[in-house]
Amino acid sequence: MTAMIDALKALVGPRGLVTGDDMSSYEVGARYGSGRAACVVRPSTTAEVSQVVAFCAAQGIRVVLQGANTGLVGASSPDDTGRQVVLSLARLKQTCVVDAANRSVTVPAGMLLQELNEQLEPHGLWFPIDLGANPSIGGMIAANTGGTRLVRYGDVRHNLLAIEVVLFDPPGEVARFGRALRKDNTGLDLKQLFVGTSGTGGVITQATLEAHPRPRQSATALVVPSSDDAVVALLRKLEGELGDFVSAFEGISGRAMQAAIDHVPDLRNPFAPEPVPDFSMLIELESCSSPAVTGLDLQDTLNRFLEGCFDREVTNAVIGSGAELWHLRHAISEGARGLGKIIAFDVSVPRSMIMAFCREAQALVRERYPHLIVVDFGHIADGGVHFNVAWPKDARASFDPATVQRLRDDVYALAVERYDGSYSAEHGIGPHNLAYYRKYTSPATLSIAHQVQRLLDPQALCGVVSFGPHSESA
Amino acid sequence: MTAMIDALKALVGPRGLVTGDDMSSYEVGARYGSGRAACVVRPSTTAEVSQVVAFCAAQGIRVVLQGANTGLVGASSPDDTGRQVVLSLARLKQTCVVDAANRSVTVPAGMLLQELNEQLEPHGLWFPIDLGANPSIGGMIAANTGGTRLVRYGDVRHNLLAIEVVLFDPPGEVARFGRALRKDNTGLDLKQLFVGTSGTGGVITQATLEAHPRPRQSATALVVPSSDDAVVALLRKLEGELGDFVSAFEGISGRAMQAAIDHVPDLRNPFAPEPVPDFSMLIELESCSSPAVTGLDLQDTLNRFLEGCFDREVTNAVIGSGAELWHLRHAISEGARGLGKIIAFDVSVPRSMIMAFCREAQALVRERYPHLIVVDFGHIADGGVHFNVAWPKDARASFDPATVQRLRDDVYALAVERYDGSYSAEHGIGPHNLAYYRKYTSPATLSIAHQVQRLLDPQALCGVVSFGPHSESA
Repeated sequence: MTAMIDALKALVGPRGLVTGDDMSSYEVGARYGSGRAACVVRPSTTAEVSQVVAFCAAQGIRVVLQGANTGLVGASSPDDTGRQVVLSLARLKQTCVVDAANRSVTVPAGMLLQELNEQLEPHGLWFPIDLGANPSIGGMIAANTGGTRLVRYGDVRHNLLAIEVVLFDPPGEVARFGRALRKDNTGLDLKQLFVGTSGTGGVITQATLEAHPRPRQSATALVVPSSDDAVVALLRKLEGELGDFVSAFEGISGRAMQAAIDHVPDLRNPFAPEPVPDFSMLIELESCSSPAVTGLDLQDTLNRFLEGCFDREVTNAVIGSGAELWHLRHAISEGARGLGKIIAFDVSVPRSMIMAFCREAQALVRERYPHLIVVDFGHIADGGVHFNVAWPKDARASFDPATVQRLRDDVYALAVERYDGSYSAEHGIGPHNLAYYRKYTSPATLSIAHQVQRLLDPQALCGVVSFGPHSESA
Repeated sequence: MTAMIDALKALVGPRGLVTGDDMSSYEVGARYGSGRAACVVRPSTTAEVSQVVAFCAAQGIRVVLQGANTGLVGASSPDDTGRQVVLSLARLKQTCVVDAANRSVTVPAGMLLQELNEQLEPHGLWFPIDLGANPSIGGMIAANTGGTRLVRYGDVRHNLLAIEVVLFDPPGEVARFGRALRKDNTGLDLKQLFVGTSGTGGVITQATLEAHPRPRQSATALVVPSSDDAVVALLRKLEGELGDFVSAFEGISGRAMQAAIDHVPDLRNPFAPEPVPDFSMLIELESCSSPAVTGLDLQDTLNRFLEGCFDREVTNAVIGSGAELWHLRHAISEGARGLGKIIAFDVSVPRSMIMAFCREAQALVRERYPHLIVVDFGHIADGGVHFNVAWPKDARASFDPATVQRLRDDVYALAVERYDGSYSAEHGIGPHNLAYYRKYTSPATLSIAHQVQRLLDPQALCGVVSFGPHSESA
C-alpha cells in the first residue's frame, strides 16, 4: 500500500495525493455512497491522468472517478474495501478556450459549471444546463445531467461536440472523439459511449460544448391549474402560443410548497391570504432576443397569455419576481428534509401521463404507507418527477430500511411497468440504484452494454458499476 | 439462388419479393452506388423483418438495408457480386401513433418524412429536419440527417427518443432501446449505436421521435455581406439580437446562384438590375408563437434588424417571398448540373472558419484545377459547406477520374487537416467515402468502432461498410 501511494505521488506530486483523514470529503457522496479509499489521486494534466491510469492498470488497482462529488447515486464514492483509488479530476482546470463565433467552448473536465459560465458571460454566451448543484463538466457528462430547462436546451448529450478521454484500454492512451463541429457524420459517434455511463468507459479529461446566447429577458409566473387535466393542457397551449420562449414548466405539489415555507427561513406562501394550492406550476419564459429589436415585453406577454386562460385552465396566478419564485422552488428539497428523513425518487414518465402517475403514486403511498408524507415536485415539461417521500420524525413507526425498500419497489414498478417510465430520469446509474438497472433493463441491452463495457475496460479497472447482468469482481 | 428466392417469398409473400428487371430502381443509388442484387425483399411487418434476418443469418446471406433510397454515399446499394439481398423497408408503413401532449410520435421505419409531417400537422406539430429529399424515417436515422434548419432543431440524433431494431445477433431478435421519455439516464444509451451508422448495427423497424410546435410565421431575406468577415459577424449579431428565431443562415456563392439562374427555368436574379453578388446569405427566422399574443411581426422585425446592419455588415438585401428565395436556394444543385459533371463535397468546419476555408479551397481549385468551376453553397450556421465543383462540358481536359480523385484528396485534406473539419458533414459513410473514413479516423476510433460493429453483427451480415481499419469479406 505504501509503495503504491509513493508511486502515485511520484506521478502527480505531493499536492496531487491525499491520504488519511483528509480523504473524508472524497469518501462520502452528496446523497448516497460512502466507503473507504486507499488514497485520493488528483492529477492536474491529461498527461498525469494518463500516467495514473497506466500505473493502476499495470498494478490491477481499481479506480473510482470523481469530479465535484455532487452526484446523487453514489457513482463517485469508493466501496468498503479500502482498496480503490479515488481519481479526482478537480485539479484539471487548465485554460478554457471560447470560440465565440462557433458558439463553442473547450473546457477541462474539472472546471465547474459556474466557472464555465463566468468564462462565457463576456461573450454573451452561457451553458444553459440548470441544476440545483455546481458540478464539474466531466461529471455532468458522466451523469448526462438534465435539470430544469431541458425543454428548451436539451441535456448535456444534446450540447456535447467532442471529448478527450484517457482510455482504460490500451491503458492510459489519450483519445479524442468528435470535433468542434455541429455536423460530422463519420460513422459510429463514440463519444456517446462516455455520456451518462458514470465514468465506466474511460476518464474524460476535456470536452467541447455548444454554448448558447444568454437570455436578455425572462418572465415567470406561479399558476394554479383548474384541474389535473388542465396542467398538461396549459403546457400544450403555452407551447402552441409562446413556443419560442418556454424554458421551464415545473410542477409543485401543495405538500412540497408547504414544506419549503414551513422549514426554510424567509419564505412565505405567495398565494396568501389564500392557502397553499394543492398543485401549482412555475412557468418561465426566456428570450435571447433584444427587446429593442422585437419590441417584446416578455412578462407582459406571459401575463396576457395567462389572462386568456383564466376560468379555463387557470384559476389563480402569482406574478412574482423570478428570483423569488425560483428560490421557493429550489427550497423544496431542504424544506422536505425538515419533515423527516427523505426517500428520494428521480422518475420520469411520458409527460402526457405525468399527473395520472402522480395521483396514482400518491394514492399508493396513502394506502400502503399511511405514516409517510409525499413531497413531490418535478419537471412537467420533460416528464420528470422527484416523487420524494418523507418519513416524519414523529411517525408511529420508526425508520425501517425494509419498508423503504418495499416503497422503492412499489413506486418504480408503477413508473416503469405501468407508465412506461424511467426509474432514473436524470441522476444516472450508480451503486444506489444498480439493482433496479438489473431488474428493468432488457436482456438484449444488458448483454450489449456488458460487452461494450468490457471492450472499453477489459480489466474492469473502473470499480463503480457493471452494466452487465451480474456484478463482477476484480 | 432459386431456392433462396422461394424461401424468402414464403416469408414475405409474392408482393414482398422483387426480382429481375424490376430490381433496377433498388440497385442504383440517388448519387453514388450501383450494383446487382440477388433479389429485393420487402417485408411489411417487424415480424417479417425478423424472419428475413434470421433466414439470411442461417444461410450466410449478406443484406443491404434500403429505405427510400435517397442517400448520397452509396450506403443503400448492393455491390457488384449479385449475391447481396436488398432488404427494403419501404412497406413498413403501419400505423403512426401521435402522442400530442408528449410531443412525440411513434413511426414505422418505412414512412416518409412528408407522410410523417402530414400525420403531425393536425396536432399543430412537425418533425423539422428539412432536406432536399423525402427520405424514410429509418433512413434518416441510419444517416443522422441534418439539413438546413439544424441550427434551431438539431439533427435526427437530437430528436430521437427510442427505436425498435431487429438485431443481427441473436439473428432476428427484436429489441427496443429507449422509451418515449425526454429524461431516462439508465446506463449506456444503446440507440446511439444505430444512429448515423448506415444500418450496420441492425434493422431499424420503428422509431419514437420528438415533434415540435409548427411555425406560425416566418421571415426571410437574401443579404449581401460587406466583407467575408461580415458573414459570421452578422450571424453572431443575429443570434445575439434575434436568437429565439434563427432557423436558417445559408451561404450562396455567386457562381452557385448564377448556375441556378442560368439552368433552372423561371428563376431570375433577385438583385437585378444589379449583378449577382459574389456571396449572399439566405436568412430565415421562424416563430412558433401566436402573433396575436406576442404582437410580433417577424418580417418587420427582421427588416428592422437588417436596417441596423446597413453600411456595417450588410451592403444590400432583398426581402422576397420565402418560397421564392428557398426555391432559388434549392435549385443550386440542379443548376450546377447544367454546367457539367458535378464532383460533390459535403464538408464542414467550425463555423468561425467557414469563409476562410471557402476562400482557401476556391484558391486551391483555381491554381491546381483551373479548368474546373467551384459552385459552392452551404449552411453557415452549422459550418456545413457543399463545396461542389463542376467539370464543364466544354472544358479543355476531358473528365478524368484520376483528377477527380486528386481534387477530393486536396479538398478533404484542407477541410480535415487544416481546418479540423469533417469530410462527411451530413451524408454519412458509405462505399463512396469509406476510403476517407479509413484515412481520417484515428486508430483508437477504428479499433473501438470495429469491435462494436462485430459485437452487433458478428457474421458481417450487413454488407455495406466495415467501420474497422480494413474491409472484410463474408
